[in-house]
Amino acid sequence: MAGNLTPSFIARSAVLAMALEVSGTPKPGNIDRDHDYVGTKYEDFIASAIGVYPVMEKACSTGGIGSLILEASGESVRWQGGGNTHFGAYILLFPLIKAAMRGPVELLKENAIEIVKESTIQDAVDFYRAFSMVEVRMKDKEALTSGEKELDVGNDSSLEELDRRGITLYDILQISAKNDMVAREWVEGFRRSFMAAEKIASKRKTGTMNDATVLSYLELISEEPDTFIAKKYDLDKALYVQGLAVDVLERRMTLNELSHRLYVEKINPGSTADIVIAGIFIALLYGMKV
Amino acid sequence: MAGNLTPSFIARSAVLAMALEVSGTPKPGNIDRDHDYVGTKYEDFIASAIGVYPVMEKACSTGGIGSLILEASGESVRWQGGGNTHFGAYILLFPLIKAAMRGPVELLKENAIEIVKESTIQDAVDFYRAFSMVEVRMKDKEALTSGEKELDVGNDSSLEELDRRGITLYDILQISAKNDMVAREWVEGFRRSFMAAEKIASKRKTGTMNDATVLSYLELISEEPDTFIAKKYDLDKALYVQGLAVDVLERRMTLNELSHRLYVEKINPGSTADIVIAGIFIALLYGMKV
Repeated sequence: MAGNLTPSFIARSAVLAMALEVSGTPKPGNIDRDHDYVGTKYEDFIASAIGVYPVMEKACSTGGIGSLILEASGESVRWQGGGNTHFGAYILLFPLIKAAMRGPVELLKENAIEIVKESTIQDAVDFYRAFSMVEVRMKDKEALTSGEKELDVGNDSSLEELDRRGITLYDILQISAKNDMVAREWVEGFRRSFMAAEKIASKRKTGTMNDATVLSYLELISEEPDTFIAKKYDLDKALYVQGLAVDVLERRMTLNELSHRLYVEKINPGSTADIVIAGIFIALLYGMKV
Repeated sequence: MAGNLTPSFIARSAVLAMALEVSGTPKPGNIDRDHDYVGTKYEDFIASAIGVYPVMEKACSTGGIGSLILEASGESVRWQGGGNTHFGAYILLFPLIKAAMRGPVELLKENAIEIVKESTIQDAVDFYRAFSMVEVRMKDKEALTSGEKELDVGNDSSLEELDRRGITLYDILQISAKNDMVAREWVEGFRRSFMAAEKIASKRKTGTMNDATVLSYLELISEEPDTFIAKKYDLDKALYVQGLAVDVLERRMTLNELSHRLYVEKINPGSTADIVIAGIFIALLYGMKV
């Protein structure tokens, strides 16, 4: 049974999800419409989101997930000079896009779980090519989103070795899942992405799109330590930020105070931002409007 | 001789131009990333820009300008609840898109001039259908962009009458040109759109994308009274805003003061925003990056 959404609708929803996520402000620590980083600015994220439209549409009909991540990573930097903006998001969006094409939106989760398990060795090879490209590119920049640090696949991750050992992209992300909450989504059936979608859609019913994005982001941070922070610094730092998010939710600190502190300390919960993108995307597929 | 840009690149540039224009802040009086209006917010403009992507791509190969404006106006409100966001911009973007497909970017202006003169009676009919749709929709909202008020085509503008008198879309906009600076672009060879493109591209060389957008917008307002203001209020009000923009450029008032004053007084230079969209679009076609 094919999906009931058109490729064009699905691709525009993916682009819009990326644009809405980065627009949500204040989104403590991450780039948003009112916060740039040195070398990467809000407009870079907007241009990247719009620039990859054709890859999002292509994903609806063809392309392995690895090659799509590779293609999107390349297309993104043809539109902006801020480096890697959405690598982590692609890891979530492409399986969800293919799931939306495979069946009705009610079966999105089930189909996404199926699809990641079908990933191939070629996907792993392409993923590593994308990963190396992004990593090289990030040498001059601060790492801003998840996925570009310390993906663990054992000691030997050469392409030949992946092939010899028969390692698929699913295998890679399964191994990475312990330390990477984006990879964990593949293994845990997009648990937090769908949780984010529920939070966002429900908050949107009674508040603005911006509030829905920001509050959901804050709740997600308060619930689990962000692995991008843990990889960039250490787990203690991620737990510290988690605690601060709880403080904001329990009114011991204002959102603006948290925002100010994370920007000053240069701590950005990049993996949580990727989850929020996936959540907005899912909510849009289910009919949420801005 | 065909153009050297792909439909996909042209369409993404049109979407990005709309997104960058509305992002530019502070853009006194108009909605921007930090200023919403009651009933219409920043995210509505972003969703509308991304939502009309397929119409922008379609314009590269087929569709009369009138029917494209009609289609885009309909598609826009399927993605957001803020009403008419880009009607005036479509009047400029579609001829420019078709011009980009007709020949090399160096001949963009010449081809755009040719293309608007080729507009038909059917374009006029479709334009009026779009116009009525937008007008009806705007009854509950404040008019936010140009094009939705007082397009003068004589006393009788029924569809039958247009057909009987052989009136094309070019004719309509020629008649409207006196009171509408967007319509005037069709008659004056997109003079201010290309002037805006030059300003934006040149400022982007030495400053941020946001500064390039905002300063160009300010210069444009200072050079000619905005006709959207003139139609919503009167010419005096438009001249008053023009004078204030000069004050800012000559450092007698800050940009933030002007911004605050126009929001408080609910004066939005909507036609100038449309010109800025066209200018960013042209600059992107010429190779500008965010």
